[in-house]
Amino acid sequence: MTQPTALSGSNAVADLDARTTELDRGHVFHSWSAQGGLALLPIAGGHGTRVWDHAGRTYLDFSSQLVNVNIGHQHPAVVAAIQEQASTLATIGPATGNLTRGVAAQRIAARAPEGFNKVFFTNGGADAVENAIRMARLHTGRDKVVSTYRSYHGNTGAAVVATGDWRRIPNEYARAHVHVFGPYLYRSEFWATTPEEECERSLRHLRRVIDCEGPASVAAILLETIPGTAGVLLPPPGYLPGVRALADEFGIMLILDEVMAGFGRTGEWFALDAYDVVPDLITFAKGVNSGYVPVGGVVISDPIARTFDDRVFPGGLTYSGHPLAAASIVAALDAMESEGIVTHAKQIGADAIGPGLAVLAEKHPVVGEVRGTGVFWAMELVADRSTREPLSAALMGRAKGELVGRGLLPFIADNRIHVVPPCVVTADEVAEALATYDEVLSLLDEEL
Amino acid sequence: MTQPTALSGSNAVADLDARTTELDRGHVFHSWSAQGGLALLPIAGGHGTRVWDHAGRTYLDFSSQLVNVNIGHQHPAVVAAIQEQASTLATIGPATGNLTRGVAAQRIAARAPEGFNKVFFTNGGADAVENAIRMARLHTGRDKVVSTYRSYHGNTGAAVVATGDWRRIPNEYARAHVHVFGPYLYRSEFWATTPEEECERSLRHLRRVIDCEGPASVAAILLETIPGTAGVLLPPPGYLPGVRALADEFGIMLILDEVMAGFGRTGEWFALDAYDVVPDLITFAKGVNSGYVPVGGVVISDPIARTFDDRVFPGGLTYSGHPLAAASIVAALDAMESEGIVTHAKQIGADAIGPGLAVLAEKHPVVGEVRGTGVFWAMELVADRSTREPLSAALMGRAKGELVGRGLLPFIADNRIHVVPPCVVTADEVAEALATYDEVLSLLDEEL
Ligand SMILES: Cc1ncc(COP(=O)(O)O)c(C=O)c1O
Ligand SMILES: Cc1ncc(COP(=O)(O)O)c(C=O)c1O
Repeated sequence: MTQPTALSGSNAVADLDARTTELDRGHVFHSWSAQGGLALLPIAGGHGTRVWDHAGRTYLDFSSQLVNVNIGHQHPAVVAAIQEQASTLATIGPATGNLTRGVAAQRIAARAPEGFNKVFFTNGGADAVENAIRMARLHTGRDKVVSTYRSYHGNTGAAVVATGDWRRIPNEYARAHVHVFGPYLYRSEFWATTPEEECERSLRHLRRVIDCEGPASVAAILLETIPGTAGVLLPPPGYLPGVRALADEFGIMLILDEVMAGFGRTGEWFALDAYDVVPDLITFAKGVNSGYVPVGGVVISDPIARTFDDRVFPGGLTYSGHPLAAASIVAALDAMESEGIVTHAKQIGADAIGPGLAVLAEKHPVVGEVRGTGVFWAMELVADRSTREPLSAALMGRAKGELVGRGLLPFIADNRIHVVPPCVVTADEVAEALATYDEVLSLLDEEL
Repeated sequence: MTQPTALSGSNAVADLDARTTELDRGHVFHSWSAQGGLALLPIAGGHGTRVWDHAGRTYLDFSSQLVNVNIGHQHPAVVAAIQEQASTLATIGPATGNLTRGVAAQRIAARAPEGFNKVFFTNGGADAVENAIRMARLHTGRDKVVSTYRSYHGNTGAAVVATGDWRRIPNEYARAHVHVFGPYLYRSEFWATTPEEECERSLRHLRRVIDCEGPASVAAILLETIPGTAGVLLPPPGYLPGVRALADEFGIMLILDEVMAGFGRTGEWFALDAYDVVPDLITFAKGVNSGYVPVGGVVISDPIARTFDDRVFPGGLTYSGHPLAAASIVAALDAMESEGIVTHAKQIGADAIGPGLAVLAEKHPVVGEVRGTGVFWAMELVADRSTREPLSAALMGRAKGELVGRGLLPFIADNRIHVVPPCVVTADEVAEALATYDEVLSLLDEEL
């Protein structure tokens, strides 16, 4: 754990935090925010599940930042691979062959289902989704993309309109996007009372929308395998196979967006591994290299790849297959394998996080539901357990402040606390976080 | 110059080239191509203006890859900065403050015109353009974006429809994009015969289209300061000021896309510095860090930044303000300043590339026109100088093969050879490249 060494004396390091804030306020424009009132924690370093500021104040990172640092902060093998690739060849264009890039593609394809051999690399999740949509449209010769209201797929032109949440509304400049409701029993859109009913009815709803849109106009159904930002909405067992069958019936491509759920988050290499479903395209980013270098991409099933053997694929980007990103992917996937990090994520979810959150749910009336798997969990907070009225934004803001004040970086979305630490989180760190959540939930209980 | 050291013996290193090709063909899906017939040069390392494969065969890089490696391959200061930042904090989310990010934003804003203080970071050029369009739309409350047919702005939803070239056609899923012709005297769309006429008529055409679209519906005029991929189309002196005046007349935002032209390429920090124009938004990527880490962004003028002080900016991405990218930006811009790299680009363009290309144009009937500035030049090849009929794709393919065969990596677009080496190219390297072009142009002359 490298603490700042260039400067000594607590004034000097505290000054760096102040300097960070000053430069940030003066010159950095931030995502998804009004810029005026931002007061962001300065972060200078990290290791594993912890990060710290220049003054040495540490935080337990139960956000994995934007749910991307699956391997933990500053994994030495990934850092070393980046340093080594930087010293050999930091950048090279996509119109060359590059060994590191080829190895990265091979490693990723090896984790995908049988019959997925090629990888198109992008810079992040949004452009992965863009290119998956492009492939599905050109492969089918159809236009429409069906996705869910409770989803997030990125901020670029098509990805943001495929997105279902509020971020779509100010950005609706793309055509041929259709939205449906997915399964979410706790707040069922289908008046369902059992997982079986929710599954059956959400499939029926999807079929009805496809019927009405005209199945022959639908290029793709685009789903997060487990909708993440929307609330870690684990699909009921039959849902994804049901969607697959529906897609097959109408010649529709199934795109599973694994940008957040993939590469260890759920305790599987791909979240889809637990759901008995094989899509046509898989999008990835985040966990593939824990975001140490910006990268994302699409894993392509053979029939779609073959479509572009003789036909020009009309998509591309300057940094597709960037060697620094490729080196970080190879190192991250190899370390995750050799250190059993994916298995650990599954275990710690089953043994510590899940049971711990169940205890909190039992104890605190403010908790409406907990759900999740691996290191991918959500606690849904409610003003009233019987009506399930979401906890107010003001109280969620208070929860955030109280958690940060206690040294825990939380991931908060709407009325939920997402419990999403790195896959390498230890049992002790889980215990520490659970104790912190416990204190803050007690404060919230008092407000009900 | 690091040559591969882990393996010795020419068989072993030649095997690595074969292995690169094998993995590439098996697992890597490439940009803007039919995948079947690709035979890509394996590149393993580089330094300055040269790159090489595993077997040690070197190439003079007169493409700067995709016109991004402005500082040259493997600049030691940029490599060191990446290595150091990787060892401290490789990644951190955009919802934190980070010192390296703040310094990078400050350095970029300092190069922009007066009144540009904030930077929104993206992963590359396409998403820079996406977010600039978003800002212009929300700031004006209008929808339409006017851009040129001869342009490229990226592969994502809005950027690809703003693009004018063939890559737009299979991707037209966004609305509210309008295209016009820009000035290009050599192939005038306005029956002009002098630069003054071309300037005046292209401004008149732009005004007429805006009139007919309804000026109050136009959010932005989006232009590459110097259209790059479209042919290094230097605007006549009065054009950009004329566009600015038109934009002001109707309350339209002017976005200058400096993804390719910015940060040294033209011999200026921003290409716009030579054109007496101040836009409202500037997009950048490529040259800002020579692509050592994927990054791009938008430099925002104060009035647009202020729009989002109290109002949520509805755009964002996981890797916005990535610290590894930020570190590479700071190091690249500082090295460009301290080593006089931008000035060098201007000088070598004026003293060596420009005069050298003029000699080739004089000598070879196949050259229709040369134009450019700094290290940003195009030779337009024609089957017939009087009709200006573009040289055939077959002969352009031959030119490419001949150049690569002589150890020069060219940038070829349509019927043009773009002469776009790193800004650090030496006079000797320019002489070497000119000699190579000379030989190949002679071969082409014979085909006329
Ligand atoms: C499921 C999913 N898809 C796509 C994205 C977009 O990724 P990026 O922010 O890298 O563009 C996200 C980001 O949170 C995501 O969770
Ligand atoms: C002017 C311009 N804008 C945008 C882009 C897109 O950049 P990227 O490939 O990084 O998405 C390019 C790429 O060549 C460009 O030249």
